[in-house]
Amino acid sequence: LGRSVRCNLQIAVRCASTARGDLLKPSDSLIDRHIGPSESEIAEMLAVVGYKSLDEFMEATVPDTIKNNRALSMGEHQCESEALDNLRAIAQKNKILRSHIGMGYYDTITPGTILRNVLENPAWYTSYTPYQAEVSQGRMESLLNYQTMVKDLTAMDLANASLLDEGTAAAEAMSMCLSINPKAKRFFVSDTCHPQSLAVIRQRAEPLGVEVVVADHRDYDFENGPDLCGAIVQYPASDGRVDNMTELSGKIKSNAKGKCKLVVATDLLALAKLQPPGEFGADIALGSAQRFGVPMGYGGPHAAFFAVSGGSNIVRKMPGRIMGISVDADGNPGIRLTLQTREQHIRRDKATSNVCTAQALLANIAAMYGIYHGPEGIRRIADRTHACAATARLGLEKLGYDVDQGAIFDTIRVRTDKAEELAAKGVEAGFNMRVFEDGLGLSFDETTTSEHLNEIFGVFGHELAVDELLAAADLTMGPMERTSPILTNPVFNSHHSEMAMQRYIFKLADRDISLTRSMIPLGSCTMKLNATCEMIPVTWPEFGRMHPFAPLDQAAGYQAMIQELSDDLCNITGFAGITLQPNSGAQGEYTGLLAIREYHRANGDDHRKICLIPSSAHGTNPASASMSGMKVVVVKSSSNGDVDMEDLKAKVEKHSENLGALMITYPSTHGVYEETIVDVCKLIHDHGGQVYMDGANMNAQVGYASPGEIGADVCHLNLHKTFCIPHGGGGPGVGPIGVGAHLIPYLPSHPVIPTGGDHPLGPISAAPWGSASILPITYMYIKTMGAEGLKKGTAVAVLNANYMATRLSKSFPILYTGANGRNAHEFILNINPLKTKTGISEKDIAKRLMDYGFHAPTMSWPAVGTLMVEPTESEYKAEIDRYCTALESIRAEIQDVEDGIFPADDNPLVNAPHSLSKIVQEEWDHPYSREQAAFPLPFVKAAKFWPSARVNDEFGDRNLICSCPPMESYDELEIELPPTEEKVKQKN
Amino acid sequence: LGRSVRCNLQIAVRCASTARGDLLKPSDSLIDRHIGPSESEIAEMLAVVGYKSLDEFMEATVPDTIKNNRALSMGEHQCESEALDNLRAIAQKNKILRSHIGMGYYDTITPGTILRNVLENPAWYTSYTPYQAEVSQGRMESLLNYQTMVKDLTAMDLANASLLDEGTAAAEAMSMCLSINPKAKRFFVSDTCHPQSLAVIRQRAEPLGVEVVVADHRDYDFENGPDLCGAIVQYPASDGRVDNMTELSGKIKSNAKGKCKLVVATDLLALAKLQPPGEFGADIALGSAQRFGVPMGYGGPHAAFFAVSGGSNIVRKMPGRIMGISVDADGNPGIRLTLQTREQHIRRDKATSNVCTAQALLANIAAMYGIYHGPEGIRRIADRTHACAATARLGLEKLGYDVDQGAIFDTIRVRTDKAEELAAKGVEAGFNMRVFEDGLGLSFDETTTSEHLNEIFGVFGHELAVDELLAAADLTMGPMERTSPILTNPVFNSHHSEMAMQRYIFKLADRDISLTRSMIPLGSCTMKLNATCEMIPVTWPEFGRMHPFAPLDQAAGYQAMIQELSDDLCNITGFAGITLQPNSGAQGEYTGLLAIREYHRANGDDHRKICLIPSSAHGTNPASASMSGMKVVVVKSSSNGDVDMEDLKAKVEKHSENLGALMITYPSTHGVYEETIVDVCKLIHDHGGQVYMDGANMNAQVGYASPGEIGADVCHLNLHKTFCIPHGGGGPGVGPIGVGAHLIPYLPSHPVIPTGGDHPLGPISAAPWGSASILPITYMYIKTMGAEGLKKGTAVAVLNANYMATRLSKSFPILYTGANGRNAHEFILNINPLKTKTGISEKDIAKRLMDYGFHAPTMSWPAVGTLMVEPTESEYKAEIDRYCTALESIRAEIQDVEDGIFPADDNPLVNAPHSLSKIVQEEWDHPYSREQAAFPLPFVKAAKFWPSARVNDEFGDRNLICSCPPMESYDELEIELPPTEEKVKQKN
Ligand SMILES: Cc1ncc(COP(=O)(O)O)c(C=O)c1O
Ligand SMILES: Cc1ncc(COP(=O)(O)O)c(C=O)c1O
Ligand SMILES: O=C([O-])O
Repeated sequence: LGRSVRCNLQIAVRCASTARGDLLKPSDSLIDRHIGPSESEIAEMLAVVGYKSLDEFMEATVPDTIKNNRALSMGEHQCESEALDNLRAIAQKNKILRSHIGMGYYDTITPGTILRNVLENPAWYTSYTPYQAEVSQGRMESLLNYQTMVKDLTAMDLANASLLDEGTAAAEAMSMCLSINPKAKRFFVSDTCHPQSLAVIRQRAEPLGVEVVVADHRDYDFENGPDLCGAIVQYPASDGRVDNMTELSGKIKSNAKGKCKLVVATDLLALAKLQPPGEFGADIALGSAQRFGVPMGYGGPHAAFFAVSGGSNIVRKMPGRIMGISVDADGNPGIRLTLQTREQHIRRDKATSNVCTAQALLANIAAMYGIYHGPEGIRRIADRTHACAATARLGLEKLGYDVDQGAIFDTIRVRTDKAEELAAKGVEAGFNMRVFEDGLGLSFDETTTSEHLNEIFGVFGHELAVDELLAAADLTMGPMERTSPILTNPVFNSHHSEMAMQRYIFKLADRDISLTRSMIPLGSCTMKLNATCEMIPVTWPEFGRMHPFAPLDQAAGYQAMIQELSDDLCNITGFAGITLQPNSGAQGEYTGLLAIREYHRANGDDHRKICLIPSSAHGTNPASASMSGMKVVVVKSSSNGDVDMEDLKAKVEKHSENLGALMITYPSTHGVYEETIVDVCKLIHDHGGQVYMDGANMNAQVGYASPGEIGADVCHLNLHKTFCIPHGGGGPGVGPIGVGAHLIPYLPSHPVIPTGGDHPLGPISAAPWGSASILPITYMYIKTMGAEGLKKGTAVAVLNANYMATRLSKSFPILYTGANGRNAHEFILNINPLKTKTGISEKDIAKRLMDYGFHAPTMSWPAVGTLMVEPTESEYKAEIDRYCTALESIRAEIQDVEDGIFPADDNPLVNAPHSLSKIVQEEWDHPYSREQAAFPLPFVKAAKFWPSARVNDEFGDRNLICSCPPMESYDELEIELPPTEEKVKQKN
Repeated sequence: LGRSVRCNLQIAVRCASTARGDLLKPSDSLIDRHIGPSESEIAEMLAVVGYKSLDEFMEATVPDTIKNNRALSMGEHQCESEALDNLRAIAQKNKILRSHIGMGYYDTITPGTILRNVLENPAWYTSYTPYQAEVSQGRMESLLNYQTMVKDLTAMDLANASLLDEGTAAAEAMSMCLSINPKAKRFFVSDTCHPQSLAVIRQRAEPLGVEVVVADHRDYDFENGPDLCGAIVQYPASDGRVDNMTELSGKIKSNAKGKCKLVVATDLLALAKLQPPGEFGADIALGSAQRFGVPMGYGGPHAAFFAVSGGSNIVRKMPGRIMGISVDADGNPGIRLTLQTREQHIRRDKATSNVCTAQALLANIAAMYGIYHGPEGIRRIADRTHACAATARLGLEKLGYDVDQGAIFDTIRVRTDKAEELAAKGVEAGFNMRVFEDGLGLSFDETTTSEHLNEIFGVFGHELAVDELLAAADLTMGPMERTSPILTNPVFNSHHSEMAMQRYIFKLADRDISLTRSMIPLGSCTMKLNATCEMIPVTWPEFGRMHPFAPLDQAAGYQAMIQELSDDLCNITGFAGITLQPNSGAQGEYTGLLAIREYHRANGDDHRKICLIPSSAHGTNPASASMSGMKVVVVKSSSNGDVDMEDLKAKVEKHSENLGALMITYPSTHGVYEETIVDVCKLIHDHGGQVYMDGANMNAQVGYASPGEIGADVCHLNLHKTFCIPHGGGGPGVGPIGVGAHLIPYLPSHPVIPTGGDHPLGPISAAPWGSASILPITYMYIKTMGAEGLKKGTAVAVLNANYMATRLSKSFPILYTGANGRNAHEFILNINPLKTKTGISEKDIAKRLMDYGFHAPTMSWPAVGTLMVEPTESEYKAEIDRYCTALESIRAEIQDVEDGIFPADDNPLVNAPHSLSKIVQEEWDHPYSREQAAFPLPFVKAAKFWPSARVNDEFGDRNLICSCPPMESYDELEIELPPTEEKVKQKN
């Protein structure tokens, strides 16, 4: 019947319900726009699943044991324009002063074409982590550019594709040093480091039993001191000083018989003028790429960079995702995520890091900024930034101030006992400075002008002739001056006009499947609509240009929004308290487990370190548990996919004394509302343990149940799943944790801007409110959906999943269902039986889906040989039906293999995806036609997307190429590739 | 050597020129971003053309006779962020009050996804008029949707793809009636019409000798009155009244023996509730589509709609572009511009209209708004709008006011002698009303809320219970209530969720070549960069939400910007005065010629009506001349392409007595700086004529020469060419005219907001400052380029053209060059010799370029059998080289035809473009490979764009289908097509 039915039915509904009072309802409610299916489509789907109404369906599907039967507190939804107007008024309570605070956050200019065509473009921000390489070459090329840029500026061997922020990157470096030198449980932190990095390291070190030694690296006796696993210095120092790193490097290497690793926290812009860490022996270099075009945003999100030198041993310990160049089935270079075996989803509690979601979108912006400016542009920005600092220093000297001497880059330090007074005058004049006990710090950036310098001079005394000061200033960099060229790769030397840049941005986006093309039903990832009205406030300057350490009274708008959002999220989750600090789900897990740990310690239960985790848990769970000093004990799943209650009871009893926590995902990672969850929570509590709920599947609870009411003590939310923050191709994310009242005291603090409970943890993120500038997305979502809208969203998400499961169960077995035969918001197709029969694997199906224009579901997680499908409420019936039809058509193709019509080694599945190059080749000797290969269903033709040919995973892991090859022209990407396996075979 | 040279050279330049003063220069200058080639590329290109420096090159290329040797007055450029900050401060001088003024302009909500992904998306706004159908199917589908929407809501037979505004659409209707009934030189305008429409009609009628009869249509004796060519009524009336149109229609048809045409100016939203004009016998329906999601923007741009009923006679007189469905070479439906033979570029002075640039982008936004809301959504918005008006009327009655009774839609009229006083109170309360002599008018719209109603009641007396009023209000529509369904086509019933809408928007954009893919070197069209920083202010609410008739003191920001922009444009053109009112180049021409006409009349020279126009002139020139009551006399071109001076002299002398004007394009439409231009101007002046310069080629003058100094009396600019307003797929545009001091008195006025000279023309556009909301684009361009940047832009535009001409002259003859062998900013490739030899036409080359990923140059204009290439300054060398390589490769393919390697009827040229369907077909029996067809050069593969197969022009003109076919699913577009010629052949 199609869509036309919709109108009639809806008109009927409208007429019937049009009490006149409804007549004046605004025309821009988000609810019907966010929820994909129309009322008539919902009715059709309900009929297929076997229910009469959404209420009846949810009544039957959500277990009574967990239903909370209460209305959410946020009340009526606001329409889009109303919510935007209200949020604008809140935003305007922020007072945007110019920032000279520094400390790792600097104002920057996002080039217009990058702002509009990347940051504000759904083709970029709605894509997922590029696990499916063949439909992700565009953003992977961009992330490879990012890695290349970091490698080039730091002169290290290899960079990853971003970490969460500089503070956590420093903590990751500490963990990495420890895992290389596990016996030296001591880490040196130079007092040059940013205080927030030190604090994040301290918090990370404590559960691991690592002693943090803080000292002045100039005095410290590395040679004779105790063994350190590593030492970190900030270069340039947090207060601006540029020390001689060559000397320091030698000293540090004298520790622990040369085993102590040198970690350099640094600044990409400074490295345009300063000798890079790779040239003075650093093992790890890290820092923030924020000032490469990413707004400060009150602390985030921005990409942290992380690079290492020293061969495969160190590379294989590196945290985070890495893009690598491999080869595809056509023999062309193909980019893919390399060395995934390091990551938590494979190594679980043995992983060096729990990082999963990172900062892909922000890394891409930073890379694009590097490409747009190129080597000269970046040098010019570095030069002008340095010149501002040098000029300011000379001016303050002229005004009689005691200013630190020596080499500097962008920051100067003034010694004065009038710090507070001057800072207050600065605020009056419109700018913030950093306040030390004995003076002030001033940092400069891309946006500083000579008028700004004069405003500063005015505050410190009187205006000066900036030109003359500049002419007289000392602009030498001293012994650390960089002599090597920067950004030599062609990609940084080709796209400097706006037209060229714009075309490059669009060309890359054209190679990717994002939500702008088709549904991406990734189980556990909740790829729902990221509505435009939610995205609009993110790039308002009132949110973008705020330094995270700006005085609280200047951030009244942020604080008001954060408070309201916290209240709403507490209500949704049924918790008493919340922190928005964690930058990802994994960070939330880590924070929550630490809070549990503190709680036990406060009760004298330091020994409660056992963490029970079901075997089906996401890899971040065990990784986070082990980072928080807990010992993971795995609980089995029963044959129906639920937690095996027998095994759980046995293990709880066995570990009763030492039981710290259970980590459990709800609904389960199998997409089932387990009936037993309340009992499980009780069991754990009865044995003195705490329940950590992984809230990744919160999209199946909102409005119907809540972790707090179910019995969890703490739960993280992935705002980048349930609450509409876009995935950005692999980040940003926000992973707040809600906690019961007894855990509130332990919520994390911050060394610069106090936050958290009465007995707080140290900070988990570098910024007090984590990735604050994307919180408006969730705020807008909640306000525009309102209590009823959120609840309906949950119901439709569950309906969409059950409709698909009902339809697809005729083609593939569904792995697990609940007691009533229903799934929650996602379900698992079991491919194993077909695989055994035909040799066609879940991977072949995933790749074949690309020929149909679709992104695969989540593959082989949480169970091998499966595909996990999560449509979300934002998908409409036509798209869902197309996806089902594609899977059914693929099932028929597999039948043809089973029936011997296609040979097992030459069929549309094993050859998938079919690239354009392949289709155009003159020769075609397959048992199916080109048409069938490329346009297997009629709807495919209407908007054909061309995947690349299948990328060779093994080859990529064996041959590590993680930066752009130096090529003559990027358009004609040709790299020297070692022979492929087949070619090798032919040779022998 | 490529781009890497650039860096070194530039570093060298930087080091050399780095006087320290330069160090603090901002990092975001637009100049180097707007101008495509880097310094080193400029040097390379200069070397090829044979010059050492840009100065030397321009010195040699621009004739001394026209050089003005002065600096432009706008001085130093501002950097991007600085200019944005400054313009923001100006914008904030606008006081945005809520508008209840009505009169054809209403506040509206642009759905977020349409705002971001159409209006702010370069993939939509940078494309050109879809003359090349095979690379324009996306936006043509959208324009077809627009036509379908208009046809559906008006119930007329056929709609065009937009006109410039409602006022000009009304005037076009008048012209159309006249051309159908040329003997009845009398046009009736009902006093229900908006005053600006009446004024535009009056001005349009006067030069044509048409008498405008204004009266109350209820009293007027149509039956016995003199013959009218047509009669226009506003429905609903400007003051809100809804008359019985069935009665009126009968009365009007009694005039002139049934020949008098009924023209209905109407409102798309009202037609959701009111019987459509097509159902009561209208011949023409027109109006503004502004309130369908397009911001008021102080008057424009918005799309006017225009629809007709009554068979092919009337259709063929319709002005403006029309999309029609034809068939392509694969046998699939293909959309194309249909019936182009009506248009000025074919019919010249015989055309019914001079319309060329229209409002494609805005029509697309309106269509998308219709698609997003669908029939129920639009009905709901109409219902709520109507309910607001009805409630307001009842409330004011309750408050004791005398309010007009009878059927209404969105507007009420209050009779009171306190109008001024109440209006002032309204302004204080935050809203504007319409002021009549005897009272006030209030209009309501999508954004009105019950709070707004109460604010109104407060001003008129005191607050009331809106709910109760609403419950009691009369919501019937009376006899004119619509009974037929609306928006029944599937496209309006399929994309209501934001996800679905977003995908549809992206799917269409994917089918088009815009500047985001590759260069579009359309001669005469100046497809340069539309920089993001120029586009950003366009969607600021401070510019968007201003009603064009808001009191001047509320528009201080607009007025300040308009003044500064006018000053700058006067300086650039060397003129004493300017008007920004015309909405397109053609409108500028018309305005300029009218000013000349007034000047002659003021001098008692009413008889000076001869307008000399060179044969190579753009079609709008003769069309505009004839609309302004002049008689066109064509002047020959000499063999070198210049104006034939002998012929000119002869004609000037022959018509000396009656010489009104010469219209001349400079540089000539042949892309040549004619040396004789100053003499030409003098000659005309010596014979009492005025010189009208067509400024379409102003991009070759800015900073070097000016029309005013060359000797022109008036010149229009296409801000959508030279001054960075994007083409939007066929509009918007702005066509200001600069004039000498003697013509200033005649600049156009406006009936509502006074503008113009002391003896002004009537208005040319419906709004006093035309398309005011896109003026910030040009403003930003001028401010960010500054005097030096603008001048350099011109030089590089000319260099790019000459570099290409030099390179391509080895493959194709260049039709004309200047005295020194150089071209100006564009040049013409002569395909005629090759065509004679091989049968391969310029059209085949244009289509073959699509296979290479490129949009064709301007085809067969101004000379048949040619391609006119204009690269603009924004194209960088790599892209220019790719384009040249493609043309050279095509030349080689033609050689293969010449050499008999390919048959004349089966070669890559005549078969071009090669669609994806064709490439994938199993059969391939061409003498060249699939690879060669699809990837003729290596760079094509890196970002293959798939054109559709060649669209059949003849078929489309013979079979008129100008709205979406009713289809089951839009994804599977299948229409009943009559057999193609080939199939017909086979049948016989
Ligand atoms: C069940 C589950 N837990 C935890 C996570 C980790 O969240 P994040 O990627 O934000 O660190 C995920 C992410 O996909 C998940 O699916
Ligand atoms: C030389 C010339 N004159 C006039 C015009 C008409 O301008 P517009 O399309 O803005 O009406 C054009 C447009 O292409 C042109 O090229
Ligand atoms: O990103 C995930 O690992 O699901």
